[in-house]
Amino acid sequence: MRTVAYASIIGASGYTGQETLDRVLAHPELELVAVGSDSLAGQPATALDPRLNRNGWRRVPVFIANEAALACEADVTFLCLGHEEAAAVEPSKRGVVIDLSGAHRLRDAALYDEWYGFSHPHPSELGDWVYGLPELVDVSGRRLVANPGCYATAALLALGPVREAIDPDGVVVDAKSGMTGAGRVPKASTHAGFVLENVSPYKVGAHQHVAEIAQQLGFPVSFAPHLLPIRRGLIATCYMQSTGPDVRSLLEAHYASSQVVTVLPEGMTPEIARVQGTDAAEIGVFADRFTGRTIVVCAIDNLGKGAAGQAVQNVNRLFGFADTDGLRLSGVRV
Amino acid sequence: MRTVAYASIIGASGYTGQETLDRVLAHPELELVAVGSDSLAGQPATALDPRLNRNGWRRVPVFIANEAALACEADVTFLCLGHEEAAAVEPSKRGVVIDLSGAHRLRDAALYDEWYGFSHPHPSELGDWVYGLPELVDVSGRRLVANPGCYATAALLALGPVREAIDPDGVVVDAKSGMTGAGRVPKASTHAGFVLENVSPYKVGAHQHVAEIAQQLGFPVSFAPHLLPIRRGLIATCYMQSTGPDVRSLLEAHYASSQVVTVLPEGMTPEIARVQGTDAAEIGVFADRFTGRTIVVCAIDNLGKGAAGQAVQNVNRLFGFADTDGLRLSGVRV
Amino acid sequence: MRTVAYASIIGASGYTGQETLDRVLAHPELELVAVGSDSLAGQPATALDPRLNRNGWRRVPVFIANEAALACEADVTFLCLGHEEAAAVEPSKRGVVIDLSGAHRLRDAALYDEWYGFSHPHPSELGDWVYGLPELVDVSGRRLVANPGCYATAALLALGPVREAIDPDGVVVDAKSGMTGAGRVPKASTHAGFVLENVSPYKVGAHQHVAEIAQQLGFPVSFAPHLLPIRRGLIATCYMQSTGPDVRSLLEAHYASSQVVTVLPEGMTPEIARVQGTDAAEIGVFADRFTGRTIVVCAIDNLGKGAAGQAVQNVNRLFGFADTDGLRLSGVRV
Amino acid sequence: MRTVAYASIIGASGYTGQETLDRVLAHPELELVAVGSDSLAGQPATALDPRLNRNGWRRVPVFIANEAALACEADVTFLCLGHEEAAAVEPSKRGVVIDLSGAHRLRDAALYDEWYGFSHPHPSELGDWVYGLPELVDVSGRRLVANPGCYATAALLALGPVREAIDPDGVVVDAKSGMTGAGRVPKASTHAGFVLENVSPYKVGAHQHVAEIAQQLGFPVSFAPHLLPIRRGLIATCYMQSTGPDVRSLLEAHYASSQVVTVLPEGMTPEIARVQGTDAAEIGVFADRFTGRTIVVCAIDNLGKGAAGQAVQNVNRLFGFADTDGLRLSGVRV
Repeated sequence: MRTVAYASIIGASGYTGQETLDRVLAHPELELVAVGSDSLAGQPATALDPRLNRNGWRRVPVFIANEAALACEADVTFLCLGHEEAAAVEPSKRGVVIDLSGAHRLRDAALYDEWYGFSHPHPSELGDWVYGLPELVDVSGRRLVANPGCYATAALLALGPVREAIDPDGVVVDAKSGMTGAGRVPKASTHAGFVLENVSPYKVGAHQHVAEIAQQLGFPVSFAPHLLPIRRGLIATCYMQSTGPDVRSLLEAHYASSQVVTVLPEGMTPEIARVQGTDAAEIGVFADRFTGRTIVVCAIDNLGKGAAGQAVQNVNRLFGFADTDGLRLSGVRV
Repeated sequence: MRTVAYASIIGASGYTGQETLDRVLAHPELELVAVGSDSLAGQPATALDPRLNRNGWRRVPVFIANEAALACEADVTFLCLGHEEAAAVEPSKRGVVIDLSGAHRLRDAALYDEWYGFSHPHPSELGDWVYGLPELVDVSGRRLVANPGCYATAALLALGPVREAIDPDGVVVDAKSGMTGAGRVPKASTHAGFVLENVSPYKVGAHQHVAEIAQQLGFPVSFAPHLLPIRRGLIATCYMQSTGPDVRSLLEAHYASSQVVTVLPEGMTPEIARVQGTDAAEIGVFADRFTGRTIVVCAIDNLGKGAAGQAVQNVNRLFGFADTDGLRLSGVRV
Repeated sequence: MRTVAYASIIGASGYTGQETLDRVLAHPELELVAVGSDSLAGQPATALDPRLNRNGWRRVPVFIANEAALACEADVTFLCLGHEEAAAVEPSKRGVVIDLSGAHRLRDAALYDEWYGFSHPHPSELGDWVYGLPELVDVSGRRLVANPGCYATAALLALGPVREAIDPDGVVVDAKSGMTGAGRVPKASTHAGFVLENVSPYKVGAHQHVAEIAQQLGFPVSFAPHLLPIRRGLIATCYMQSTGPDVRSLLEAHYASSQVVTVLPEGMTPEIARVQGTDAAEIGVFADRFTGRTIVVCAIDNLGKGAAGQAVQNVNRLFGFADTDGLRLSGVRV
Repeated sequence: MRTVAYASIIGASGYTGQETLDRVLAHPELELVAVGSDSLAGQPATALDPRLNRNGWRRVPVFIANEAALACEADVTFLCLGHEEAAAVEPSKRGVVIDLSGAHRLRDAALYDEWYGFSHPHPSELGDWVYGLPELVDVSGRRLVANPGCYATAALLALGPVREAIDPDGVVVDAKSGMTGAGRVPKASTHAGFVLENVSPYKVGAHQHVAEIAQQLGFPVSFAPHLLPIRRGLIATCYMQSTGPDVRSLLEAHYASSQVVTVLPEGMTPEIARVQGTDAAEIGVFADRFTGRTIVVCAIDNLGKGAAGQAVQNVNRLFGFADTDGLRLSGVRV
């Protein structure tokens, strides 16, 4: 017997929405029942992407308004909205909700005023949401999942398993992301004439993902993100001082049975190219020869493990599907 | 009951070899029995790519010498060698051979002296090979398949179905390819410092693929290839004068039932990004307002439909597997 | 004694405006008197670019409204506006005007309805403008100069000197341009997430530059432009049938004394990287082995020789400055 | 009266050699007398770059062997060789020598064994060389100049002026460089198929530039370099804990009169695009909101201020030329 969960996507026309759509359509246990997009409501699916009606491709429903899609009360609802929009959504009384925005990642509502610039409309319900980083948090049995941010995912995969083995002071996370991390809305900073042959740091020391990183680690880190002239992929270089235990051993042990996260052998560096387009993560561990500190590098795809791939991973855990169902983990694509 | 064909790859460490390996490992009916590479012989599979031993990934044999891999006499042998090397290979007496090089694409042996710069060592056997462009040539029942060149594939998908409907004089094919088309061996022209923020035409009016294009069409075309600052993907812009019949209608009819080639609706242009990493092709048809000529644009991935994907497509036809087994045709990846 | 011409720039905040500003500030005989920009009016110059107040950099006026800047009646006014805006401008009664838009390139006003989608507001004055391609047209003694389009410049440098030596039927110009050619306004097609790892043909067979190419050659060509994932630079590959005379000899003779255009020796291909950031052009000539046709490739910088550099070149001719004043022609930058 | 210094370049065919050649040819007070390259010896200058014989371009000597070029005893000799080659060179008894390699940057000879993997052949003469970072070190009156490394330049411009105002423990420098930083010799890691859509950290915690950074600061830093898919440009993000004094004020004061280094106003981030192709540096200063640390970002061109531009700057100081002679500091290029 095959279990099928009915899925709806709210805000399907952005980058994370499209990638979620891509994974839902390919997932063996998920069936799409509604695709919401206020900007594309009423239009055929091909308005988003002509590949949706390729010969032989399965039937896709037309876009409906987000509110209508939310009303469907699917078994699983993927929220692919802006932070403030997602915070305003009234979660349905039944069904799993995976929020890919930052609207439910922080338990302390005051942090939304500080880091997101808006007052959270449902502060008392923040405790109902679980932070959906399955390698570090047990999400089983939960209904409301806050999918982690892309930068936070990379940083926490590197730092989470060793947080008690390092000095909480002076940890630095320097992260670099492909352009799709900046969203699909055209603006000056996403114009190719600005992006090509450039690297732009932004929100230096002031990016909102630092709040969720600190919440999960128990201590803050210094964090600066940079936008790269590539489409997708993200790499975080994390500097830390071990307080004794061997960082490499801890990470290898933590991910020994993981299908998603690979700790590379000594001397090998993670590369965006090897995880691009996938839901996998690569971790490399290095000794800093001069200072004795440790440098851990983590590479993911910002739209894969950093967004839609992780959302599917959470769904698999919540519904008891096979752990790697619908995930892109293997392959040696050039 | 499941039919399984045993496959070997000769020259697995180049770009087309690696992409073929990637597809064989994922193909439901193919089982890898030998991976040959003279440069990596004796080394573990991870010497090519660390992803080959990712947790959960299936067992991969170590590299052996190409000669040893050839001796395996697999059900299907993929030759991923240089042109001259592949020409020298003595095809085994049994089993399918798919040659991804140019060594067996031309029926007239004299053309090898002219376009490839070497005398073909087995001129009398060239007639045993079929030109494996399944959308134009029936390959069923054949044993030796010459897999078409990447540029030739794009040009012939655009021109093949209309060759009797256009003036054979004055056809122009202007093609642009991602860098992996230049092969994996480091040289001045593949150095990123040369490639980035550059476009370099090469072998202008003198590229060897023009010979196979002419052979299949029955007339020559003017052809200039250009290398682009992208990893993969290829786009060919083809200019022609219709002699009456409507080029769009002919192409739409020819590809009406194709799972691989899509003729886009009027006004929509093919894009490399939408076929990148896939085995699909997109075709767009345009009227040239000022001159009345017709412009047909075809986009493929040079390593997919232009190489390894087409090789798998040929295997599916020869072994009677499902037409799209192991092919990457769907998805709406950002 | 030093001759100084006072210059104003109208629409200085777009890409061509900024590049013109860059050249005016560096030109030994030009003095900036007004910088117009409706969007930046009233703001300090650094609102456009912080480099404008680098230590030691010369004083730059604040932005004023375009109308105010036009009222300055400078010795030379650079119009860096959209096509329709520029067409509406009433040229001052004195002073040189260089229009970098397409608004005054076509002598036949009806062509504006056909190719630009608007009715020209000053049809009877189109004859007062000279098409400012100094390698092909004598601009001396003129006051109103229509600066050629970037694609047209590359095509005409390749085809202009040989137009009587080739068959006017069947000429094809396949052109590829860097992203800055699409203008600075953010839109879906200039979003880096769309541009990177992509090549997009657009206005295939229907681009407005074909009208000015036809006007200057006396016959139309087939033309398809493509946007590249690079910031700047443009390359046009031109296919033609010689009617007898040697195309290479004609081009070499025509550009023998040019400081701007270089015909490369046999076997050498033009490259965007070598002309990027400069006002120079490179031309390569190739025999098409199979068909006997000739292929001429021309590379320029779309913002240099294709826009602001050519504007300065025209100014030099009109004011009798040294031919290369303010131009970027030498250097062997990596 | 004009002072002219005669210059020779040893190893002119690499990236730093070519950029040095580019600047020497454009410098108002330098005259080229010899261009050495063992690989191009005897060949015409255009073997390096066809632009060297552009119409109107000044005469350029043919390449000679490096040893012959060294024997010229020019007024200033630029060494653009590999580290070990440069270490072996016997500096001439007269004339200024600017070594662009790392061979003379470290005063302690033992560090060459540790960080460069060779024993320095002239350990006792290392004290004769001055570390040529003119913003931090007075080079006047010296004859032998060790030009700093590109990463070290960016890190030291950010950290040098505040080294007594920050906690020497826990300083982190995370740096990202364009591909030309990896040199012109083709290898797997510079192949465009590897570089495009990728970011590769390398020598993490083990890069030799950390030794010269430590030497100049008096304390070590944690340092990881990353190669970017861009041609040129470098950005270093430096994390530090102030011990009291305001880092921004100190940097602004230090560079108040600099023509080369600009401290950007609050809220503005340095960008590679604005310094690419120039000899300028941009510095941005940011408060790390959560931890109270300070983040200083410095952007340079790895081949400009990070190599050839700095070499020319050193020459200007040593010969008493105007401080910005031959430097590329202004301009608002798109």
